[in-house]
Amino acid sequence: MAAETLTANPPVDFQTAPEHYRHWTIDIEGPIAFLTMRVKESGGLFPGYELKLNSYDLGVDIELADATQRLRFEHPGVKAVVIRSGQERVFCAGANIRMLSQSTHAHKVNFCKFTNETRNAIEEAGETSGQRYIAAVSGSAAGGGYELALAAEHIMLVDDRSSSVSFPETPLLAVLPGTGGLTRIVDKRKVRRDRADVFSTLEEGIRGRRAVEWRLVDEVVPKSSWNETVKARALELAARSDRPDGATGVRLTPLARTITENTISYPRVSVTIDRGGRVANLTVLGPTTPAPATAAAALAQGDQFWPLAAARELDDAILHLRLNETEIGQIVIRTEGNPALALSYDALLESAASDWFIREVRLLWKRVLKRVDLTSRTLIALIEPGSCFAGTLAELAFTADRSAMVDGALSGNAGPAATIQLSPMNFGAYPMSNGLTRLATRFLGEPETVTRARATIGTALDAKAAAELGLVTFTYDDTDWLDEIRIMLEERASFSPDALTGMEANLRFAGPETMETKIFGRLTAWQNWIFQRPNAAGDDGALKRYGSGIQPTFDRKRV
Amino acid sequence: MAAETLTANPPVDFQTAPEHYRHWTIDIEGPIAFLTMRVKESGGLFPGYELKLNSYDLGVDIELADATQRLRFEHPGVKAVVIRSGQERVFCAGANIRMLSQSTHAHKVNFCKFTNETRNAIEEAGETSGQRYIAAVSGSAAGGGYELALAAEHIMLVDDRSSSVSFPETPLLAVLPGTGGLTRIVDKRKVRRDRADVFSTLEEGIRGRRAVEWRLVDEVVPKSSWNETVKARALELAARSDRPDGATGVRLTPLARTITENTISYPRVSVTIDRGGRVANLTVLGPTTPAPATAAAALAQGDQFWPLAAARELDDAILHLRLNETEIGQIVIRTEGNPALALSYDALLESAASDWFIREVRLLWKRVLKRVDLTSRTLIALIEPGSCFAGTLAELAFTADRSAMVDGALSGNAGPAATIQLSPMNFGAYPMSNGLTRLATRFLGEPETVTRARATIGTALDAKAAAELGLVTFTYDDTDWLDEIRIMLEERASFSPDALTGMEANLRFAGPETMETKIFGRLTAWQNWIFQRPNAAGDDGALKRYGSGIQPTFDRKRV
Repeated sequence: MAAETLTANPPVDFQTAPEHYRHWTIDIEGPIAFLTMRVKESGGLFPGYELKLNSYDLGVDIELADATQRLRFEHPGVKAVVIRSGQERVFCAGANIRMLSQSTHAHKVNFCKFTNETRNAIEEAGETSGQRYIAAVSGSAAGGGYELALAAEHIMLVDDRSSSVSFPETPLLAVLPGTGGLTRIVDKRKVRRDRADVFSTLEEGIRGRRAVEWRLVDEVVPKSSWNETVKARALELAARSDRPDGATGVRLTPLARTITENTISYPRVSVTIDRGGRVANLTVLGPTTPAPATAAAALAQGDQFWPLAAARELDDAILHLRLNETEIGQIVIRTEGNPALALSYDALLESAASDWFIREVRLLWKRVLKRVDLTSRTLIALIEPGSCFAGTLAELAFTADRSAMVDGALSGNAGPAATIQLSPMNFGAYPMSNGLTRLATRFLGEPETVTRARATIGTALDAKAAAELGLVTFTYDDTDWLDEIRIMLEERASFSPDALTGMEANLRFAGPETMETKIFGRLTAWQNWIFQRPNAAGDDGALKRYGSGIQPTFDRKRV
Repeated sequence: MAAETLTANPPVDFQTAPEHYRHWTIDIEGPIAFLTMRVKESGGLFPGYELKLNSYDLGVDIELADATQRLRFEHPGVKAVVIRSGQERVFCAGANIRMLSQSTHAHKVNFCKFTNETRNAIEEAGETSGQRYIAAVSGSAAGGGYELALAAEHIMLVDDRSSSVSFPETPLLAVLPGTGGLTRIVDKRKVRRDRADVFSTLEEGIRGRRAVEWRLVDEVVPKSSWNETVKARALELAARSDRPDGATGVRLTPLARTITENTISYPRVSVTIDRGGRVANLTVLGPTTPAPATAAAALAQGDQFWPLAAARELDDAILHLRLNETEIGQIVIRTEGNPALALSYDALLESAASDWFIREVRLLWKRVLKRVDLTSRTLIALIEPGSCFAGTLAELAFTADRSAMVDGALSGNAGPAATIQLSPMNFGAYPMSNGLTRLATRFLGEPETVTRARATIGTALDAKAAAELGLVTFTYDDTDWLDEIRIMLEERASFSPDALTGMEANLRFAGPETMETKIFGRLTAWQNWIFQRPNAAGDDGALKRYGSGIQPTFDRKRV
């Protein structure tokens, strides 16, 4: 097994800002943003490895994720984004091998998941937000480096006899390209499968015309006209964008966050950890004031606009639990607040959907809810008196593996009786990775129930009504509530975490498959398997032996 | 790691016949066949475990696969099949735990793959062949037992306060239901995901009305009317079948097979193993006489009808390589023969498609080709002078991860120049697990090429034409052929077998996903991962500790 070096390290912080970046710079020229990768060798998140050749670790990707998010909110006028390298002969060498070889299994898996989510967000920016990405590949784009380029809508490659794209993972490292690459080459770029096979075993990769012919890149460009061609392509893409000219962006200010041994709290989200029970109690507070009347008034609130602020806090809390609290197997989700106020925000999100800022807020919620779906912890929603499972916040109950609702009053809780209220936002704004809404996925076997549920918009559903409609798993009255919940949590905590991860990954995403579900379901599961196998992760395996000059030793059994 | 006990055992033989069955009986009553499971406790394939409570090992499933195949060919008049238990209180307890805990990782994975293929064949029988399955569940159907029932089109459960369906794998064994169960409950039966979650953690399972309400079974039936209701349902399903009345079946006689240390040979298929190179050279011989003129004449040839005989031999050879030659990482596929004769069979398969026997032969080829696709070995097709990659046999080249074709003559080979010839059979008869033809999958990025390929039906394509059309990966002339092939095989043999398995599983099935690809791609990969993890397979893991009275020890990290 890999050494457990990384667990002793300080918690990973997902918050950053351009003024703290060590590896990326953002340069804006009119409608084009240039995202330049110049990874600082000594800037690794943990000790023990150097980030040579623009290779990356989680810290590099946290900056990238931050940059892509800020470009959307802070720069409404940016319509095309060019990802390029700030180094001479290399675009990006992919994930750092020494980092991988010294990482725990959990870190490797979480690292891959986060980088995949970042690349999906890049793809989504072009598809839904009018901010379209170009990968301008000069130098070699190897492994994760090429996978980063694959997230872009248009891949350009310098035609200079050395710039190339490659997947050297299988021949060199005995693992897979783990950031969606195998799926994207055959499913997004539709590379012929036998060529994809050849390409994925070719250490040195492919360059020049052949890379275009094999559909691996969209164009090759002579070095002499590289810069102007990149800019011309970016302007062409920008011209097709519907992002506004001259709008003012919203600055994403640092989150107000306090972390103690067993809590993490923000103004609108709090987490309390029960280490004995291996449970994180996560509570989202609904808004305390009504929504502003217009998109312009919302924009004036900046990043304190409730849905934006709550989504950012929730996202950070989930990432913290994923990376820094790996022994906490269950996340119990609660909400608190006034459903009518929450629904006033949904009304604005719906009526002003075409406004650029409101669109970004909706899309952020979509991404954050997907992040919750993809979190490999048991998710349990508890719907109690005083809760606020209304509209957008009700989606949290539908992300859960199971939910329970209090029927009537609850001793020691003076809040109004628990209800669920649906809003138009539950019927299309937040599709899951499978492309369906959570309600459509939930009622795959009885689509007419989705219609019945839609007819309840505007009605507060009590426990009986919610259960009748199939929106909750269990309802209990005051007499049983505490015992039933305690038993449910204790039982779950007794099961094997691995089996639960596999089980939940298979039950959460019924229905159609998409590139995203393939990446998170199929590709990730294979990579996880390979990451455990001695051929890759063992002391004589390829990850450990890489760079030592000693050949790895392989178990030759084909499984 | 699990003990490697099973590798020392004799090779697994996939050939059997009803007169040798130890665990199943087939009883035919008019249009209904009853498949009764009465597993012999001492009848395990390997020593070291007893098959109690109708639990199964690979040997039990080999009989089931044989029975389902024979019902289709030998009993054209059987229109409904009832799977039932011959034991009192148990329907089927699923895969035998002691067998699993003493098995190698490779055996567990191959065992699950084969049982999945058998269940898919059961599903396919109802969908395409008019032989529709009912699971008549009396007693408990646990884990793989319930998964067997899930393959049926209609699940009946005795309403007797003890008969139940359950997935106890996660709570009891720290593994997943590995035979498609998680996928089938949410995707086929469309059980609500939170109920699926509850069900999959409930050791004792669910019975009675609740099982119907949760969509886990189709009906519950009082014990008093059990037998007549089962028969009535079978007759109802039979009435909707298009299988013929009064037709004569085709007896599947034993394959003429000779196995030596490094060869396995049949009349139409031969395998030679190069242990040093870890390569199996598999050659299929085309027919030596023209096809019979009519379906009736084909029927008169019985199981010696060339396409039927060749498919059975190929299937057996692939299964042999999978289970008994795990260190052989590459299968090099060749054909030999007269393309015109092969195409005469395709013409009959196409013109007589509506005949029940011809339909079964086509469906058998479909299943066998899918078995090839799903074989976790590198598949390389070599198209040489004298080869017979025509129509149905050309599909073998399209199953391959890559192919190479000789351009012109080849020293030491006096056969006619290599060609590929397409027939109508390449355009719909043999869909892959993803529901597309191999050519449609190959040309996902350029669908017009499929149209161009179809226009070549009737033309023998030489190496240049085949390459131009994208039907082969490489072409080499005599000067380069031997070296290029040697280098390709040596290079492939040097890679990690695990990484290749994962890579190939991700590249072979681009395009849409189906329940089958979910089962083989997503669910299997997760199960493989879990099968490696100490929580399940370790010395203190749940599989090892099961039945010992000692609780397993779990690593609590959630990954």
